Amino acid sequence: MKKVELVTGILDANDVLAKQNRELFRNKKIFLVNLMSSPGSGKTAILERTIASLQEELAFGVVEGDIYTTKDAERIQAQGVPVVQINTEGACHLDASMVAKAFENLPMDNLDVIIIENVGNLVCPAEFDLGQDCKAMVLSTTEGNDKPWKYPLMFREAKVVILNKIDLLPYTDFDVTQLENDITEISPNAKFFALSAKTNEGMAEWCAWLKAAVKEKKQQ
Amino acid sequence: MKKVELVTGILDANDVLAKQNRELFRNKKIFLVNLMSSPGSGKTAILERTIASLQEELAFGVVEGDIYTTKDAERIQAQGVPVVQINTEGACHLDASMVAKAFENLPMDNLDVIIIENVGNLVCPAEFDLGQDCKAMVLSTTEGNDKPWKYPLMFREAKVVILNKIDLLPYTDFDVTQLENDITEISPNAKFFALSAKTNEGMAEWCAWLKAAVKEKKQQ
Repeated sequence: MKKVELVTGILDANDVLAKQNRELFRNKKIFLVNLMSSPGSGKTAILERTIASLQEELAFGVVEGDIYTTKDAERIQAQGVPVVQINTEGACHLDASMVAKAFENLPMDNLDVIIIENVGNLVCPAEFDLGQDCKAMVLSTTEGNDKPWKYPLMFREAKVVILNKIDLLPYTDFDVTQLENDITEISPNAKFFALSAKTNEGMAEWCAWLKAAVKEKKQQ
Repeated sequence: MKKVELVTGILDANDVLAKQNRELFRNKKIFLVNLMSSPGSGKTAILERTIASLQEELAFGVVEGDIYTTKDAERIQAQGVPVVQINTEGACHLDASMVAKAFENLPMDNLDVIIIENVGNLVCPAEFDLGQDCKAMVLSTTEGNDKPWKYPLMFREAKVVILNKIDLLPYTDFDVTQLENDITEISPNAKFFALSAKTNEGMAEWCAWLKAAVKEKKQQ
């Protein structure tokens, strides 16, 4: 009983801070994406391709969540984009207070969009509101078709579902139509993109959507 | 501060129950495997192949951990093996008390080996001792070479590391030698197996190791 009470308390406290983050991003007119997936689905690769494609049109900032390393942040830094690394030191997700501190180290007056790459985990990150405009999740074709029903909270929370590694479709038994049907059932309003961060196939549609969403936020 | 204290308390309580599980398995001379990985690495597929290969020689029991569904348990049940499903209802890992209850529903006097398939998650399951003889983890070739250093606790805890989906090696840039070097550094005593649950390549070595480990436990 105590465990449940405490967890609720943590989530309540997180929601207060998430609201503050949301207010900050409303004022700054920066579009905030919370990017989530299993380990190894390709979040960083998608981020690299997205930045390379839109860097001349949009000013990006990135927050990298990782348990211990700075590997992903180094990949993003190599693209010349401001990036802040959060090491959770064992914690399996980011929370609103962690990202609030990270924002203090980004040039907030000069950015159009900030993408937070969450810790690789299909479970807990879905529970923590970071104050984002959009929760986006990545599934890769090699992970199998059973994931939406095994991890329904993540799929329900996602406003964007990206299927990555479509270049590997010929070598797996992944069924894209089945995934689209499952998403329609679990999260009917979610946008769906199928792409390969390796070959670049399908990246243009996702980038076009992101660009439009950033512009829409600017005009609010 | 309170959060840290409570988490420590949960882990301490878990250790007491894990010790009880370990004692039970010592008495029954059943070998207990705690199988962990990211979502979609292929734990269930490996389990299916392992059971098919050794079913005539060893009496298997299976505990399936899943947040909501019974999909994996149904796959194992189809093989005619006693299986108990644990639905964690949101929790991202199994703990010693959950599996202790599951054992009550298995024919413990007639089993040689029980494999617990943990919730798909590279983070939290590594923290919870279930009383197992062996923590085994699966990484798949499509998840990338950066995982050992990004999720070091999981790799450090694993006494067996299985690389799955080697059939996809030609289509990825995964470096098996690099993985072996990283494992040697992080967990020098871990056994390493490279295999494909899809093509069956490499399954024989893992099955031979498991069979020997089960027999060794019988003789203790």
